[in-house]
Amino acid sequence: MPMNVPFSAARIRDEFPVFRHHPDLIYLDNAATTQKPLAVLDAERRFYETANANIHRAAHRLGSAATDAFEGARTRIAAHLNAAHPDEVLFTRGTTEAINLAAHSWGRAHLRPGDVILLSTLEHHANIVPWQLVAQATGAIVKPIPLDADGTIDQRAFLSLLTPAIRLVGLTQCSNATGVLPPLAPMIAAAKAVGALVMIDGAQGIAHGGVDLQALGADFYAFSGHKLYGPTGVGVLWARRELLAKMPPWQAGGEMIDRVSFDGTTFAEPPFRFEAGTPPIAQAVGLAAAMDWLAGHDRDTLLRHELALRERFEAGLVQLDCIRVLSASAPRGPITALAFDGLHPYDVAQFLDGYGVAVRVGQHCAGPLHQALGLNGSLRASFAAYNTEADVDATLAALATTLEQLA
Amino acid sequence: MPMNVPFSAARIRDEFPVFRHHPDLIYLDNAATTQKPLAVLDAERRFYETANANIHRAAHRLGSAATDAFEGARTRIAAHLNAAHPDEVLFTRGTTEAINLAAHSWGRAHLRPGDVILLSTLEHHANIVPWQLVAQATGAIVKPIPLDADGTIDQRAFLSLLTPAIRLVGLTQCSNATGVLPPLAPMIAAAKAVGALVMIDGAQGIAHGGVDLQALGADFYAFSGHKLYGPTGVGVLWARRELLAKMPPWQAGGEMIDRVSFDGTTFAEPPFRFEAGTPPIAQAVGLAAAMDWLAGHDRDTLLRHELALRERFEAGLVQLDCIRVLSASAPRGPITALAFDGLHPYDVAQFLDGYGVAVRVGQHCAGPLHQALGLNGSLRASFAAYNTEADVDATLAALATTLEQLA
Repeated sequence: MPMNVPFSAARIRDEFPVFRHHPDLIYLDNAATTQKPLAVLDAERRFYETANANIHRAAHRLGSAATDAFEGARTRIAAHLNAAHPDEVLFTRGTTEAINLAAHSWGRAHLRPGDVILLSTLEHHANIVPWQLVAQATGAIVKPIPLDADGTIDQRAFLSLLTPAIRLVGLTQCSNATGVLPPLAPMIAAAKAVGALVMIDGAQGIAHGGVDLQALGADFYAFSGHKLYGPTGVGVLWARRELLAKMPPWQAGGEMIDRVSFDGTTFAEPPFRFEAGTPPIAQAVGLAAAMDWLAGHDRDTLLRHELALRERFEAGLVQLDCIRVLSASAPRGPITALAFDGLHPYDVAQFLDGYGVAVRVGQHCAGPLHQALGLNGSLRASFAAYNTEADVDATLAALATTLEQLA
Repeated sequence: MPMNVPFSAARIRDEFPVFRHHPDLIYLDNAATTQKPLAVLDAERRFYETANANIHRAAHRLGSAATDAFEGARTRIAAHLNAAHPDEVLFTRGTTEAINLAAHSWGRAHLRPGDVILLSTLEHHANIVPWQLVAQATGAIVKPIPLDADGTIDQRAFLSLLTPAIRLVGLTQCSNATGVLPPLAPMIAAAKAVGALVMIDGAQGIAHGGVDLQALGADFYAFSGHKLYGPTGVGVLWARRELLAKMPPWQAGGEMIDRVSFDGTTFAEPPFRFEAGTPPIAQAVGLAAAMDWLAGHDRDTLLRHELALRERFEAGLVQLDCIRVLSASAPRGPITALAFDGLHPYDVAQFLDGYGVAVRVGQHCAGPLHQALGLNGSLRASFAAYNTEADVDATLAALATTLEQLA
């Protein structure tokens, strides 16, 4: 889209075929997964129809075309992330596998008994449980960084926990449950000052404004395609080349080896060392198309739009009783998490579904956060580029009616 | 397709849009990856356009539709495999990740120093290297089962290697490099008689006739979608429920947990325990569509067609000098591997590519097999349902011209 065309959420919505099939759908479950624009669906299909072959070492033109498409996707994704080099982009199934890769490869090779892994209490289970398992295997210790009363990371506690025993700090760029945005820059700097590595879970953050990896200063960054308008089945682990060079293989098979024999096997250099077997080729192409599509729409404009929708929504909520926005005053991405006095959020969501409004309820794979907040669950509305002011107003109206019905 | 319509490879070819874009393409690299029929491309696209949401625990209709599509795919795939229960089907990225899952989860939990893993020398690296790594981690020992002079598994040597120390036997259903079909039934029975588990690499076998898991009697079965007319980014590990119940989690994150806290985490039952994070949802739907499509075309008919093409090809090769078919007299699937006297297979493949014939050269991720055969590499032609007699004849003509040019 040319930059001088004014922003229109309705026009963006037209690019998403799901809304042709479900014209009345108000989809506010974007933190779980986003819908896919035609540009992404067509890119994947075009790959399958014109360039489908297995990649690397093919002795035919279709194989070269497939390799170019896949490695071209890696190069474009690296550019969108401002990574220093395409080889720092490893394709995985998603955020979860990306963090597991770091935990299994770096963690098992480098963690020793007594080493500490520090994780914020905001983290998604995907940035907790892999570290718990690697801690069990290595004798390392997982410690939580507690939250303030408003559900943000307690900075004083964080600083007091930082010691030279900390080997890794795990932080979300944007809480998937409440939208809270931790102050990453000072936290990463403080972690680096004691010699710790930093893993950033970018699953939500990448979708709302993106990331500049060279400016961020972290060591690992993980995200998924499907939460970024891209396909399911693909994600990325980014890490610096020097770090990847010191990491042993995790999964093994074709492509990641140098030479295999029953006397011993030697391994390829990164990124191939970490991409065993046929990778998600068409999905990598689709993910690059999603990031191209986002860049073409100007990411800052999209983020401002999403935040304006969240503000409109939360301003409207003030009219309604017995609703509380979690971490209301904290810096947050375009996610609103709600708790209800005397109502179960699941009941509210069921009624909203009856009005065509898709939200999510539960703990959103953030059990420790909900335990810290003293909640069994919450109701989450999460906004994307294709949501409109009409979506927000209809959701507020549906919520008002629902609360009357459940009262 | 109704069963009473006579088989026509040309009509099947019409279902594959890649041949509209490349009408002269003779694609004989099917063992690397197959092309995708419209039925698969449309099923994936229909999922994204009509039912895309994240799965499980959604409080809205689109989430229910997505869950039904994903779990419906699991159920249909289980039926196509004749698995005893859908819960025995675990979705992975592909064959390689499926074998890594078994090696990491079962292997690290159950292998002890001195335990032996017996692998045929036919195996793809994906059924060798994961076991080498788990052996390093546990003190177990990997031993190869040698080959006969014709490149088939030496059955006498196999039986002499079977002792109670054998904990796992890894066998391919069909060699990806030469097409050799090991006699699985007696080999599995002999392995079970000494108490070993059996891992079958079905990456090739599943595409040529399929599998009946309850008749097979193995313990693990792994395959990929993309070699089975399905999408990239998805595959399956099958294992019996009783075996899965004794296996600890491998990757960790959302969906595979029961309850997460910093005091400790408990895990879900199979299959969810082994499917951390958002799975390849659309790709699972596409894989089920591929298996439905295959079943609709009658798999026995397709296999007979593919084998007839291989025979026509090999009969034509007799006219040409300096070509040797590897394991020529062994029972083989629709794969022909060639060695050339005095010519490098890569040069031959490059010339064939000039005539529009896509084959693969190299060791095909089967280094130990090529070492045993005393070859640096081979040229592989592998046949699929959409290949025609005209493809074979054109390839033979191109090969004859190539040999003249290279002579």
